[in-house]
Formats: sequence, C-alpha cells, structure tokens
Amino acid sequence: MEKADRKTRIAIVTSILQSNPGKSHSLNLFCEMFGAAKSTMSEDIAILRTTLQKYDQGDIEVILGAGGGVKYIPAFSPTKREDILSGIAQTLSDPSRILPGGYIYTVDVFSNPTHVSNMANILASLFSKANPDFIATVETKGIPLALGVARAMNKPLVITRREAKITEGSVVTINYLTGSSRRIQTMSISKRAVRAGQRALIIDDFISGGGSVHALFELMKELTITVAGCGVAIAMREPLVKKVDNYKSLLTLEQVDLENKKIIIHPV
Amino acid sequence: MEKADRKTRIAIVTSILQSNPGKSHSLNLFCEMFGAAKSTMSEDIAILRTTLQKYDQGDIEVILGAGGGVKYIPAFSPTKREDILSGIAQTLSDPSRILPGGYIYTVDVFSNPTHVSNMANILASLFSKANPDFIATVETKGIPLALGVARAMNKPLVITRREAKITEGSVVTINYLTGSSRRIQTMSISKRAVRAGQRALIIDDFISGGGSVHALFELMKELTITVAGCGVAIAMREPLVKKVDNYKSLLTLEQVDLENKKIIIHPV
Repeated sequence: MEKADRKTRIAIVTSILQSNPGKSHSLNLFCEMFGAAKSTMSEDIAILRTTLQKYDQGDIEVILGAGGGVKYIPAFSPTKREDILSGIAQTLSDPSRILPGGYIYTVDVFSNPTHVSNMANILASLFSKANPDFIATVETKGIPLALGVARAMNKPLVITRREAKITEGSVVTINYLTGSSRRIQTMSISKRAVRAGQRALIIDDFISGGGSVHALFELMKELTITVAGCGVAIAMREPLVKKVDNYKSLLTLEQVDLENKKIIIHPV
Repeated sequence: MEKADRKTRIAIVTSILQSNPGKSHSLNLFCEMFGAAKSTMSEDIAILRTTLQKYDQGDIEVILGAGGGVKYIPAFSPTKREDILSGIAQTLSDPSRILPGGYIYTVDVFSNPTHVSNMANILASLFSKANPDFIATVETKGIPLALGVARAMNKPLVITRREAKITEGSVVTINYLTGSSRRIQTMSISKRAVRAGQRALIIDDFISGGGSVHALFELMKELTITVAGCGVAIAMREPLVKKVDNYKSLLTLEQVDLENKKIIIHPV
C-alpha cells in the first residue's frame, strides 16, 4: 500500500473515527491503510487525542490487546455542555411555544439534527459507564434523540410501539396507565429485537408523570432485561413524585405560566 | 489566539465539518480559531478535500462569497455505495427474516446506527440537487433513516403522525387508503413545522403499494409545499404500478418466496 504522511493519516483517522462514534477500529486497519508502523500510528492517535481534547472536540479511547481498538467518544467539557444546554433552554423558553393545556411545542427542537446530536452526545456521556446492549425508547417523539444516543454509543436502537405491527414479528405487549392523563395505553416490543439477560439504556425526550418510561421499565422486567440507565432531555418539575425516580435529565421544565405567558426551563 | 500547525488545523477542521455534515462553516471562523491567514486555511481545506476524496471519505464543498463557507458532504464513490448496499441486501436476504404474510423483518437494520447512516448518506447524495427545506417522513419505521438524511443535508426533519397529538399544536390532517391492505388511515402534520412555498424531500424505509408515500405527497399539496424528491431504502418490485412513480430507491425487493424460504433483494 501507498505510504501516507502524518497530516493525511490524521485527517483520515479523524474522518473514520468520527463517522462512526463509539465504534472500535483496530490499529492494524490503519497501519495497513497507510503503510505505517504500529508505533507511528500510536503516535498519530496520541497527537489526535490531545488535539481533539484541546479544542473540545471530543475524546479518543484506546483499548489495548486482542479485542481492543481505537474509538471516538463525543464527550465535551462541562463548559461546552452548559453552553449547548443553555442555548436549547433559551430556544425552548420562547412563549410562542405555549400550547393549550400548558404543554410546550418542542417538536422542532427534537427534529433538528444539530440539537438532537448535541443532546444525544451529552446523554451518551452521562451513561458512558452504563454499558448497555441497546438503547430503548417509545415511539414517536423520542426516536431521533434515542437514535442519536445509539449512534454516539454505537449500539442498536429498539423502538417500542404503541400498537404492534405485523412487520415487528412476534411481540411482547403490556398495558399501562399514562402518568398524566390516566388513560390506558399499550406498549409492544419485537421479541427478535432483544434477548433475556441484556442491558437496556432507556432514552426519551420528555418525562412528566413518568408513565411511559415506567412502562418501559416494566416491559424490560417482563423480558428479564436489566435497565442500565434512563435518560431524558426534559424533565418537568411537577409532579415531584414520578413513577420512576432513577433517571437523569438534561433540562428541567420548572413551570409553564399560562397567565403571564412564560416558560421557565434551565439546564439541570 | 494561539497559532496551530497544519496537522492540528486539519484534524480540527475535519472534526468540526464531520460532526455537522451539510452545515456551512465560514472560513473566518477557522482563521480566528487557529490564528491563520485565509490563504493558509484555503490551502488546508484544499489538502483535506483531496485527502478525503482519495480515501473515499466524502467530499468538501466550498462556496465563495458573503453567504458562503465550507461544508462536509458525505458522498462516496459508486464502488463504496455498491459495497454498502450489497452488504445490507445480503443481511436482509436471510430467510429467517420471513414473517407471516410474506413480510420481512427489517427493524434491526433500520435501527442500526451504522446501516442507517450509510443508507441515509447515499440517499442524501441522490438528492444533492433537490435543495429541500426539510425532510418529511411518516412515523414510525422510517424515522431513523429520515433523520439520517436530515443530518447529512443539515435540514430539519418533519414527522407526520398517524394520530394528531396535543404536543404538535394545530395540525392539518388527511385520510387515505393504504396501498396494500386497503384500510383507511389518517396522517397529520403540525402546522408550525412547515410553511407554504417550501420544498420537501420525502424519505421512507419501504414502499410497496405506495399508499403512505402518496398520502404524504397529497398532504404536501394541501399545504402548497413542493415535493423536491422522494427516496426510499427498499422498494418492492410488486405491485409494478404504485401510487407514486417518481421515487428513487436503494434496494429492490424482488420476491419473498414463502415456499422455498427465499428472499431476493439487491441494490437498484
């Protein structure tokens, strides 16, 4: 193979690592690609790591040994996280977002690729030690965020459905009461998508009473799957007592003041 | 600001461009970040572009002038596309995927971050001239793919719902017949999410009779939105006459042979 100089190697390694965050690439792959010695590649990776850290562009994890490799971790400094979350909180506090019933319109934020990947990267870093086998969410609004976390951690996404579909194959279904509106809902998961003994990281866009997230916990229990963690983008302050308490959130929605047309939301 | 050497600049520019594909960054931003002259940064970008192209890692687009900037385009060579799509076709042709009724189980593929971003990047490159204002899809299975395309093109995603939700605000709803099972379905879109006169790129995971995609076309017409293109991952060969004909697909599902337990699927 053709030899490549350092700036070429560093550009391509950055590109490969970043296009699949969380995915492990063997050092040998890079050695072959560039006709470079292992020591040279190790040095490149060390330089790249320092550079990324210095410019707050994430981190690289190197795992030595047979099953090891190099992977990109989209983890940022507390300052950068705070900047990102404050920016999103400000966007969400626009009073024109108030909907009838004290809800707020968040759909655009959870469908914006930049906001989604920023929030997802932060959530992924909160659960960097959770070691999940898959990311679980309930359709629909949380799907982009959950996919972002799945991407950041390089794990499959498992979407539970409100209604079982024929294209899901056999499913396990539970009924539950929603936390806020006290209606009976159904939640189904494809049996093929998961196995007993696995670990799930639950991700959702929003938690209020916690009904649907709690149902996901129950569904996992039904399938003998351990919940390795639960992360949401926005947690409503009230009700104070939710159906789940072991969750982490990025933003707290304190209050939607219908009378004065004010939304109070801030990073946790 | 501190001066940075070429390998540092190239690493960080690669990282910034790749973490937001399709997003334009001004050259001045990089000049300030690295204390570099414009001519130096232009040279870096030119080197990076040649390097990415050489290693089939995508492309960089440079738009000169006031509103201009530099952006990363995840576009790959025909060979790489073919490799990616053949690999996915092979995964999908596993006979254990056959479901009752001649459906095939594809959920895992459309929830795998690597497959999703690969397919999404290819779809985005097929529509690189479509210039959409947003990416539209119908819940649920197509959402990850549509988000991937939205990410590749740096455009917002707009998800139409089967049932209007209070958190969507005011909606426009249409009723339609599904192409294959001839049932009446409903499709709703948030009025806040779109504006008359915009251009939509419709993305879905699968097209069979074309009922739901056709309904999306109708919904766009209702809102005076131009459909700039329509892309799906998998198109079933039959029915030959679908409710839409102007779509592009990545894979053709020729046949699900229930008797011989065989799935015939290949890149278009």
